[in-house]
Amino acid sequence: MTRVSNFTAGPAALPLAVLEQARDELLDFEGSGMSIMENSHRSKTYERVHDEALALMRELMGVPSSHQVLFLQGGARGQFAMVPLNFLSSGKSADYLLTGVWSEGAFEEAQTLGKVRTAGSTKGVGYTRVLRQEELELDAGAAYVHMTTNNTIYGTQWRSEPEVGGVPLVADASSDILSRRIDVSKYAMIYAGAQKNIGPSGVVVVIAREDFLSSGRKDIPQVWRYATHAKANSLWHTPPTFAIYLVRGVLRWVKSVGGLAQIERWNDEKAALLYSTIDADPEYWRCPVERESRSKMNVVWRLPSEALDEKFVKEATAAGLVGLKGYRTVGGIRASIYNAVSVADVARLCDFMKAFAAANRP
Amino acid sequence: MTRVSNFTAGPAALPLAVLEQARDELLDFEGSGMSIMENSHRSKTYERVHDEALALMRELMGVPSSHQVLFLQGGARGQFAMVPLNFLSSGKSADYLLTGVWSEGAFEEAQTLGKVRTAGSTKGVGYTRVLRQEELELDAGAAYVHMTTNNTIYGTQWRSEPEVGGVPLVADASSDILSRRIDVSKYAMIYAGAQKNIGPSGVVVVIAREDFLSSGRKDIPQVWRYATHAKANSLWHTPPTFAIYLVRGVLRWVKSVGGLAQIERWNDEKAALLYSTIDADPEYWRCPVERESRSKMNVVWRLPSEALDEKFVKEATAAGLVGLKGYRTVGGIRASIYNAVSVADVARLCDFMKAFAAANRP
Repeated sequence: MTRVSNFTAGPAALPLAVLEQARDELLDFEGSGMSIMENSHRSKTYERVHDEALALMRELMGVPSSHQVLFLQGGARGQFAMVPLNFLSSGKSADYLLTGVWSEGAFEEAQTLGKVRTAGSTKGVGYTRVLRQEELELDAGAAYVHMTTNNTIYGTQWRSEPEVGGVPLVADASSDILSRRIDVSKYAMIYAGAQKNIGPSGVVVVIAREDFLSSGRKDIPQVWRYATHAKANSLWHTPPTFAIYLVRGVLRWVKSVGGLAQIERWNDEKAALLYSTIDADPEYWRCPVERESRSKMNVVWRLPSEALDEKFVKEATAAGLVGLKGYRTVGGIRASIYNAVSVADVARLCDFMKAFAAANRP
Repeated sequence: MTRVSNFTAGPAALPLAVLEQARDELLDFEGSGMSIMENSHRSKTYERVHDEALALMRELMGVPSSHQVLFLQGGARGQFAMVPLNFLSSGKSADYLLTGVWSEGAFEEAQTLGKVRTAGSTKGVGYTRVLRQEELELDAGAAYVHMTTNNTIYGTQWRSEPEVGGVPLVADASSDILSRRIDVSKYAMIYAGAQKNIGPSGVVVVIAREDFLSSGRKDIPQVWRYATHAKANSLWHTPPTFAIYLVRGVLRWVKSVGGLAQIERWNDEKAALLYSTIDADPEYWRCPVERESRSKMNVVWRLPSEALDEKFVKEATAAGLVGLKGYRTVGGIRASIYNAVSVADVARLCDFMKAFAAANRP
């Protein structure tokens, strides 16, 4: 078996140790005589896994006691709808910061449920950067401000939270959660599909202030009320048990390597390696992203021609560097360097890039 | 490793062969150098798995070309809300047939979204049977009729579909889908959480008539519109890829053993074994369910006292017969004998019951 270097945007690479453990106990979890996925979600065996995953999320992210952690289903797309369904009522409108296709998607779902405003957009510059504080046109009476912390398609990332005054800040952090230390107390809610840094697809993590959660509408279906899941420790209905078991594995791994401080150091190192390779040969590699918005999770660039983009992806794949094709609507190259992609993987990619550039001058 | 006989109500037993294959290829799926769960949902590798799972579902269930098969997230509870959100509009009301806690749950969610009627209920007799045709008080102008085909908690099951005239029939078949041959054309929609007969928790299967799906509301969030997922082959957003991979494994297994005809024979045999053991000693074992409503998936019964119920569960567990405790609100014993529970497992249970009764006369 040869494992490849996996630069896919998500579902993405998982730590090998997590997969190995899952393999070793897949038929018999801790002597229960069955797989963890065959255990009832009401069993003590599963509940221990579930509670440990929630507790590790809290510990690693430094979640304050004012906030709760939930495991839900339906991905970030489900949150695009659940957030306005719960919080967009009583005549208020919500502010959306548009920095890419996913924030547009969140905005569109909210439009079907209430009043929304664009409080800032970088669409005019092709989403090649995030917003600057002075560009924000915030409504001080908004129900919430919605942002996307990292934009997978365009390779941009907010360096820090925008100042939004007393308005609750809601963030889709699907593609950079757990990648660095953040101050959770600045957010009313953070949500993230698991399939980049947390686990497999099929589970979404929500971290939210309890008073914000309980302010949600009560006249909507229970399954779409955050309060329902908060009250039931994310066990109101059958959770995606195996996905949460894998999340626990990933969080244990994060803790074992030194927590988010170490993860952040590696992510800084990986991004520095890759961007410096790009910047060292600006005639050949062109990164369209403004320097101060460059993402440390998704690095996008182009070669001198589309034909060379294609050749690069093809030869990289053959060399065991996979998932490098840019998003279908934007083209070019994208390397997603999430937590489970190692410094060594990125170094291999950089070496390959240098050799490719040398051999393929236009 | 000793695998137990697993009678849990769900998440439940999976075929051993499916788990073994998942284990063997967990780190490297078909030479891709990564786990199937690390593959992009847009990759050819994953799409083949996805399409095969959809096609097998269609083939095994005999789904007519008028109907589509979808894989969604959020479990049956999500469907409790999505069904009325999509179809309960334009002044119509919907009819609900109440045969247990889960149909009540569906009814309650629908109440938050529109007008609903109870078109029949067996609550008055403690849900010890399903409804008889002559008890139904149907509204010929209803948007749909909603039913629960099998009631896990009470151990009841519909033998055949109720006659509902031209009104679309929507069924929650979470706990008996794939357990027997049915005529899919009688239903406008069948939905089922996977975690009993189809796979692990975290994916829900929807089989629905295309004209019914496309009649749904268009002014709601895209993620909650069936039409969105139908148009995108259940790939509109990131699906729970590993759960669907396991569903494919289960469906391949169903096909390999002879399809639903064989599965049905085994389920008939298992139910006959267990009910005949109960009926052979009516002083000791009491099944509260009316004979013609007895479920072939969840068999419920009581011993002469609660103390004996408890002792039975404890000793059965020690003997490797696990998951036999009745639902927390009703007590007693429940054996869920889904597809992956073998005739041999049920025979072991019956032998244990006879020995237990002989040793524990009150």
